[in-house]
Amino acid sequence: MSYNLLKGKRGIIFGALDENSIAWKTAIRAHEEGGAFVLTNAPVSIRMGQIDQLAKITGSEVIPADATSEDDLKNLVEKSMEILGGKIDFVLHSIGMSINVRKGKHYTDQNYAWTQKGTDVSAISFHKVMQTLYKSDAMNEWGSIVALSYMAAQRVFPDYNDMADNKAYLESVARSFGYFFGRDKKVRVNTISQSPTATTAGSGVKGFDGFIAYAEKMSPLGNASAIDCANYTITLFSDLTKRVTLQNLYNDGGFSNMGVSDAVMEAFIDKQ
Amino acid sequence: MSYNLLKGKRGIIFGALDENSIAWKTAIRAHEEGGAFVLTNAPVSIRMGQIDQLAKITGSEVIPADATSEDDLKNLVEKSMEILGGKIDFVLHSIGMSINVRKGKHYTDQNYAWTQKGTDVSAISFHKVMQTLYKSDAMNEWGSIVALSYMAAQRVFPDYNDMADNKAYLESVARSFGYFFGRDKKVRVNTISQSPTATTAGSGVKGFDGFIAYAEKMSPLGNASAIDCANYTITLFSDLTKRVTLQNLYNDGGFSNMGVSDAVMEAFIDKQ
Amino acid sequence: MSYNLLKGKRGIIFGALDENSIAWKTAIRAHEEGGAFVLTNAPVSIRMGQIDQLAKITGSEVIPADATSEDDLKNLVEKSMEILGGKIDFVLHSIGMSINVRKGKHYTDQNYAWTQKGTDVSAISFHKVMQTLYKSDAMNEWGSIVALSYMAAQRVFPDYNDMADNKAYLESVARSFGYFFGRDKKVRVNTISQSPTATTAGSGVKGFDGFIAYAEKMSPLGNASAIDCANYTITLFSDLTKRVTLQNLYNDGGFSNMGVSDAVMEAFIDKQ
Amino acid sequence: MSYNLLKGKRGIIFGALDENSIAWKTAIRAHEEGGAFVLTNAPVSIRMGQIDQLAKITGSEVIPADATSEDDLKNLVEKSMEILGGKIDFVLHSIGMSINVRKGKHYTDQNYAWTQKGTDVSAISFHKVMQTLYKSDAMNEWGSIVALSYMAAQRVFPDYNDMADNKAYLESVARSFGYFFGRDKKVRVNTISQSPTATTAGSGVKGFDGFIAYAEKMSPLGNASAIDCANYTITLFSDLTKRVTLQNLYNDGGFSNMGVSDAVMEAFIDKQ
Repeated sequence: MSYNLLKGKRGIIFGALDENSIAWKTAIRAHEEGGAFVLTNAPVSIRMGQIDQLAKITGSEVIPADATSEDDLKNLVEKSMEILGGKIDFVLHSIGMSINVRKGKHYTDQNYAWTQKGTDVSAISFHKVMQTLYKSDAMNEWGSIVALSYMAAQRVFPDYNDMADNKAYLESVARSFGYFFGRDKKVRVNTISQSPTATTAGSGVKGFDGFIAYAEKMSPLGNASAIDCANYTITLFSDLTKRVTLQNLYNDGGFSNMGVSDAVMEAFIDKQ
Repeated sequence: MSYNLLKGKRGIIFGALDENSIAWKTAIRAHEEGGAFVLTNAPVSIRMGQIDQLAKITGSEVIPADATSEDDLKNLVEKSMEILGGKIDFVLHSIGMSINVRKGKHYTDQNYAWTQKGTDVSAISFHKVMQTLYKSDAMNEWGSIVALSYMAAQRVFPDYNDMADNKAYLESVARSFGYFFGRDKKVRVNTISQSPTATTAGSGVKGFDGFIAYAEKMSPLGNASAIDCANYTITLFSDLTKRVTLQNLYNDGGFSNMGVSDAVMEAFIDKQ
Repeated sequence: MSYNLLKGKRGIIFGALDENSIAWKTAIRAHEEGGAFVLTNAPVSIRMGQIDQLAKITGSEVIPADATSEDDLKNLVEKSMEILGGKIDFVLHSIGMSINVRKGKHYTDQNYAWTQKGTDVSAISFHKVMQTLYKSDAMNEWGSIVALSYMAAQRVFPDYNDMADNKAYLESVARSFGYFFGRDKKVRVNTISQSPTATTAGSGVKGFDGFIAYAEKMSPLGNASAIDCANYTITLFSDLTKRVTLQNLYNDGGFSNMGVSDAVMEAFIDKQ
Repeated sequence: MSYNLLKGKRGIIFGALDENSIAWKTAIRAHEEGGAFVLTNAPVSIRMGQIDQLAKITGSEVIPADATSEDDLKNLVEKSMEILGGKIDFVLHSIGMSINVRKGKHYTDQNYAWTQKGTDVSAISFHKVMQTLYKSDAMNEWGSIVALSYMAAQRVFPDYNDMADNKAYLESVARSFGYFFGRDKKVRVNTISQSPTATTAGSGVKGFDGFIAYAEKMSPLGNASAIDCANYTITLFSDLTKRVTLQNLYNDGGFSNMGVSDAVMEAFIDKQ
């Protein structure tokens, strides 16, 4: 499938770890749609994953960057413009990490040093990325910035732990910085609130498989997959959505507006 | 329990059918809190229910009124001011009815004459009540108008049928008319979005018991009861919430902001 | 601009009056993107507008239909499948009319016969369109239905009158019917909440020019135009947004998430 | 005005600086309503303000605590139970501070060390307060916890800077922790989203007077004052709102649901 929606556009894609990653699928699709881009991830994630393989498939270069480091980000943005030969048109932020989740600390028993580290990596990093792009005047007019989020920002999912609060912060940053980026540079900033997705990162969350099954039954169109998310992101990077900004956009088969589905009620009632 | 929160205040309470009604409980509580009020309902509901008994308990008069009839409402408002000896401070609209639900017509197979009748009774009636009060200049400054709603206005509950759309309309009327009522008369207008409640009216909905059990498990504090709703309504009628207006306020044990609870996930997973 | 996003797809487009109409622009764009479709409007709107000219440009046929008439809609859907040679992939509902607005009746002084007529034309018509499509099994899997809405469904715009309440109802219908259409037919249903747009229909609203200027200053990317809306609608009709459903999507330059912009504050403060 | 709504209840009130503080007014009102409580603030705020005077008026003790210090909070909670003679029924969190705002750093030019400090003080502190209460099992059943927030959590107010993102995080913490506090201890957790209020803390924000005037004109009932907020908080501490939890409640004269008011449009149009 290709429509040339990103022909002539240049981008930066954060967070492709392996072929299960939403960022990975987005890179593949952006490539198919004619976009050129730089891939980036934290050095440790580069070592753990297969980003070099993705670079080969898409003809991209990889620039390592710790998204919490202003220096790394400055270097990334400058090098990206050099490599791609001009200002940036699209950016995907797909970064999230909670040490409390990894270490099995319950939400009511947080280690706050870890909480702050998670906020820095998962949420403030998005501000840092945008501040770097903004100060370097690195975005083309009508460019588009997208960050991946999750509905735990609005509603309680008990096992999502402090990532819920980080996503709420992330979505607020999209609005707050989106205002200045729109007013001053005519750049869109949005978040996509995606169905639970069986990525390598997501699979660490407790009871994740059961939760994916629940979300599947709750959503009239079923869960959105990583490739669905990649496709949706492409539309937000394209010239067809130029006035869509400051939004949090659900790509979730309808879950977000469900009170309860017949399928979930049936499973629930049979159980009683 | 009594705090004299409504001492010296005059009201009109729509929709008390029998002792299971939220409007019934609200009348009892408003009486305990020192308020004086007129009770009203449609003639057919008066015949079917026990409103006279409530009138006796609370020392109130009953004025029949079809809430879709502008003439009946005009008569109601005028008589109420006469009986109570002054302008009105608080109004409760607790009215809803769907013929499609009653007759078992599925949402995808509506009889539109019934749909429009339901909209008139359940939603436009709230506009009619407020337009009558507004044009008669019948509300005291800092008075408070409350209508009962349900979260189906925001999210899908498959069996709620066309009442979902009626509640969305009702909540919009609260905002739209609330603006003019606030600006011109300093009157608050809000809706309470209540947990599913086992009233005589609610009990007609298909699978309602199962749904109440589901909502109970989803809500961290359990479902709000009719008496909880009455108490909450009293705070909105009191002088302690003078700047709260145009709001839709959830009284639901937290359901509205849940993605999923541990209790629901457990029931769901055991079933798989 | 063409990406072949609708190649091989068949549609029905309601509400193209003249070249200022959003539905008109959407038809032009759908044609450019390779879609085939039938145009429809109420007989009176067909006489008042230039839909035949649009039909010529896009190689489409026009089938008159009163969107409040179940018979007309049944005829429209059947004829459309005949003409287009198969089931339908995309539908645009762009219909709205308030007699209270036209006749200058204030929101606090409604003529309720007109209110109900407006609800039927502006909101229930969307249910009727979907019920007809659903019962005739006329939609292809992964088809997409879009209705145009306005933010008055969520917030108060004093001159929008009873259209605010109609749009709230319309958006609720999108969710309610969208659930069944998704579950049973794998069809998406969404609404687009568009910036105030200088269409022939919109221009009737009191003080509309001033309001458009205000919205322009409030929105970091300025107001979305009719063509912006057409482009956004194309993405929702395309195969790139298959799991987006039950959503109300703002196409408004960011207005919906603004508290206040610097530009509006400046205008406001200078005035003091 | 007194209704004895808090008779027999024990509380902790954070953040009373001087008589302009919302926390100050809440303490006064809680005292009038029969509640007993401990006052607390950061040592530096205690030195700068007049909290001892408030303690005298309300017969309360002051326990200094840095709300970012788990040790200080543990000490505060233990001492409070000792002093008050039992578990806690109500808690007010009214704490917020942005170094970026104070130092005049623009949102697009943040000093991230300050950003993280602000997040810790303004948002994570709320988690720390609740984690301390939860782990010490210090709350009575049906107790109530309230934090003060602002609508910048949902919408852009350009001068609100990183406090917008902090408030988004704070409101998320209310939902996330509110779930566990409700499920395990039957305790409510809510935030109040208050009109811009001329407190000593708020007065530091650039252009705050102009903004207060704007909000006043936008709100059908005008801005909610500090005393309005205190009264609303009392209702949330009372036994009349037992099933209201995980909510963000606007106390703002209706601002949050306004698109535009006639008064603002007039000021805007005159200026053109």
